[in-house]
Amino acid sequence: MGDNPRDYFVGADLGGTKILAGVFDDKLNCLSRAKLSTKAQRGANAVIERVARCIRDAVDEFDLDLKSIRGVGVGAPGACDPESGRVIFAPNLGWENVPLRKDLEKLLDVPVFIENDCNLLTLGAYEKELKGKPRHVVGIFVGTGIGAGLILDGKPFSGFNRTAGEIGHMVLEVGGPKCGCGSKGCFEALASRTAIARRIQAAVKEGQKTLLTGLVGDDLPDLRSGDLRKAIRRGDKLAEKVVEEAAEYIGIAVANVINLINPEVVVLGGGVIDALEEEMLAIIVETAHDYAMQGTDKGIDIVASALGDDAGITGGAVLAKKGAK
Amino acid sequence: MGDNPRDYFVGADLGGTKILAGVFDDKLNCLSRAKLSTKAQRGANAVIERVARCIRDAVDEFDLDLKSIRGVGVGAPGACDPESGRVIFAPNLGWENVPLRKDLEKLLDVPVFIENDCNLLTLGAYEKELKGKPRHVVGIFVGTGIGAGLILDGKPFSGFNRTAGEIGHMVLEVGGPKCGCGSKGCFEALASRTAIARRIQAAVKEGQKTLLTGLVGDDLPDLRSGDLRKAIRRGDKLAEKVVEEAAEYIGIAVANVINLINPEVVVLGGGVIDALEEEMLAIIVETAHDYAMQGTDKGIDIVASALGDDAGITGGAVLAKKGAK
Repeated sequence: MGDNPRDYFVGADLGGTKILAGVFDDKLNCLSRAKLSTKAQRGANAVIERVARCIRDAVDEFDLDLKSIRGVGVGAPGACDPESGRVIFAPNLGWENVPLRKDLEKLLDVPVFIENDCNLLTLGAYEKELKGKPRHVVGIFVGTGIGAGLILDGKPFSGFNRTAGEIGHMVLEVGGPKCGCGSKGCFEALASRTAIARRIQAAVKEGQKTLLTGLVGDDLPDLRSGDLRKAIRRGDKLAEKVVEEAAEYIGIAVANVINLINPEVVVLGGGVIDALEEEMLAIIVETAHDYAMQGTDKGIDIVASALGDDAGITGGAVLAKKGAK
Repeated sequence: MGDNPRDYFVGADLGGTKILAGVFDDKLNCLSRAKLSTKAQRGANAVIERVARCIRDAVDEFDLDLKSIRGVGVGAPGACDPESGRVIFAPNLGWENVPLRKDLEKLLDVPVFIENDCNLLTLGAYEKELKGKPRHVVGIFVGTGIGAGLILDGKPFSGFNRTAGEIGHMVLEVGGPKCGCGSKGCFEALASRTAIARRIQAAVKEGQKTLLTGLVGDDLPDLRSGDLRKAIRRGDKLAEKVVEEAAEYIGIAVANVINLINPEVVVLGGGVIDALEEEMLAIIVETAHDYAMQGTDKGIDIVASALGDDAGITGGAVLAKKGAK
């Protein structure tokens, strides 16, 4: 498996419910994957041990051992300080000031690098799909929630409190629907999977019909993005309308990013985009150009990433490769 | 006037209607100022000659000549390429691809540096008021229109098309009032001086009373920010309410910037803020913290610049000082 014993990199994606890890070669090809539930309620130490286990599983899966790994890059769902290797604040995990890098290095005896998960998703698409060419890229990830990653001047950008990219809580509609964060009219409250499900449920309560009640039962909040795709492809007008509206909100958010940050490429990803690219992307692109100020959007690409669930682990491998020279 | 014959810097602020220039010493003290109308309709060459004249006037005013000037920094209202010295696109001037730096250097025989005007306003506040300490600063300037300047990692940031900071066209209220840019619900259509005047005029048409009709006559669109302050301090409830609403929108825009870019300091300026700081700042700060996601706004300062009309020329002097070593 390669003559140089340190020819491989591991990327890991630590989420609120699951941990993903993958082994990559120097060209960012994914050679093996592993997955484990997070069990956040067991506390930080237990979760970090599970991250280490998931990484060992991925390495073992490709018949390697950790001695072949040059570096590990990990994304965590919150404010991360790459220099100190600490997770400053990760509400979904209940973490505050956790020395993730130090603890993982102790468990694995391999150099570890950490970064915010949305920055890592963006970094994965940036290096693997865009070949690291654009100077400035913003990644927008639409799933249960909505987050963004920023690559400015070729490097992940995280701002003063390391929380840049909280685009899900950008207000798009003052006085709009309530958001989980306590505000109203946030992007996440208008276009996330949760928001789409809520809108469909409200329409059903008003007597509108949808195939989705047949597909997933009355428990519409548990709707998966794939169910929406299925329903739309079977001719469900309500699902189609609500998904199109969400695409318009995403397009307006992209325009806001173009007006404010003016990146060269906007990459879209996350479960909603992965499942509904065919239904949403053209509307997103058209709406974004409509709302971007004249002269600001010239030559800017708005694309969907094809990395899917591999985006985070790919970004982790990129981070490890950049860090572990 | 200083033993070193090149001890001074000039900052110039080229706007759609007027040109300002100022002579500064090494410590960014403004020693003299000059002002000239732009006369954009006469074309780029005539305007550039007027910029040169305004600069000569400011230099002469302090009994210097151009031999004492180490560099000139100029802000232009549009997309600027500091490396090539060209104004790529400036709709208010009707300019496209104008070699401002080269032409001014020919006229003045002094090194010239150019930058977008809002970035320059921010740079002025950044160096003079914040002493260049924060790494990331966003300046938001509220006047007839609304624009922003970005300082990221200590340097002006302008993005792919050099148009970053077009915050006036960030959508805050989908389906909201029409904006001059053709979209609806833009920040500028909700909180600029023009938007404030429009709201007051609409209320007057509905029969509401305001002292402003007595102060400025029926021509409310020509309202100056100082008139609003006067009316509010004399107890005008309508003006107070509309200005408070504008302050709330500005606070929401600041929160969007904190969520997305996470700068250490947000600096506010422009004619509306300069005149109405006492009425607006507390509301802006409170609203911004309300809408910023928890954990993102810790330790972030939201301040009003005291530079007023000097912000642009101060930024120009900073640019000249940084460029002309």
